[in-house]
Amino acid sequence: MDDKMEKINLFEKFSKFTEHWEPRVIAEMNNYQFKLVRIKGDFIWHNHPDTDETFIVIQGKMKIQFKNSIVEIGEGEMIIVPKGVIHKPIAEDECLVMLVEPRGVVNTGEKVSDYTAPNDVWI
Amino acid sequence: MDDKMEKINLFEKFSKFTEHWEPRVIAEMNNYQFKLVRIKGDFIWHNHPDTDETFIVIQGKMKIQFKNSIVEIGEGEMIIVPKGVIHKPIAEDECLVMLVEPRGVVNTGEKVSDYTAPNDVWI
Repeated sequence: MDDKMEKINLFEKFSKFTEHWEPRVIAEMNNYQFKLVRIKGDFIWHNHPDTDETFIVIQGKMKIQFKNSIVEIGEGEMIIVPKGVIHKPIAEDECLVMLVEPRGVVNTGEKVSDYTAPNDVWI
Repeated sequence: MDDKMEKINLFEKFSKFTEHWEPRVIAEMNNYQFKLVRIKGDFIWHNHPDTDETFIVIQGKMKIQFKNSIVEIGEGEMIIVPKGVIHKPIAEDECLVMLVEPRGVVNTGEKVSDYTAPNDVWI
């Protein structure tokens, strides 16, 4: 088994897709998934009632709007949005982000919208 | 609550400690922790019987030796070591790494040694 250990290069994985707001799974740790997503523009307000959600910015910068505040996150920065907290991701220019969350989490949380992306899509 | 949302800057957190092989917790997502660790030299062979473990290289490069292979991981790369797989992290020069794993995981896994670091130390 351990002669099959393989590293994952984030930019090599990002080069495999161009769509915005459609997370791609690159790895699983127990029942958690690491996902890459390209974001640009305004996402929708939503929350994840059952889980925290981690955003790690890999390239560019993004903002997350909360009900009473807005946080700007750049390269080498991360934020964990607690479960149930309503939030809205925004990126003026394209931003490359890694998400960490349990397997099965839908990108638009409790909402279904045009932004709801297919789940569990691996690259 | 959501006016207290704060981002985390990885290099600002790394600047708070200099020790090698002593992970520091920077964030929790559900019952998982994000930890930063500075590594240099050879660690010990060990495994984590109950969980996978994620290594994300933030600066520099490291190797992970497995029983039958060795994987080199650089900036922008990551690897997930499956539970129970014996491994030995190595860094010729200092390397800055982010770990993701469940709360309570001990750095030396099933072994207790001089390298066993205090757990759950936050910065």
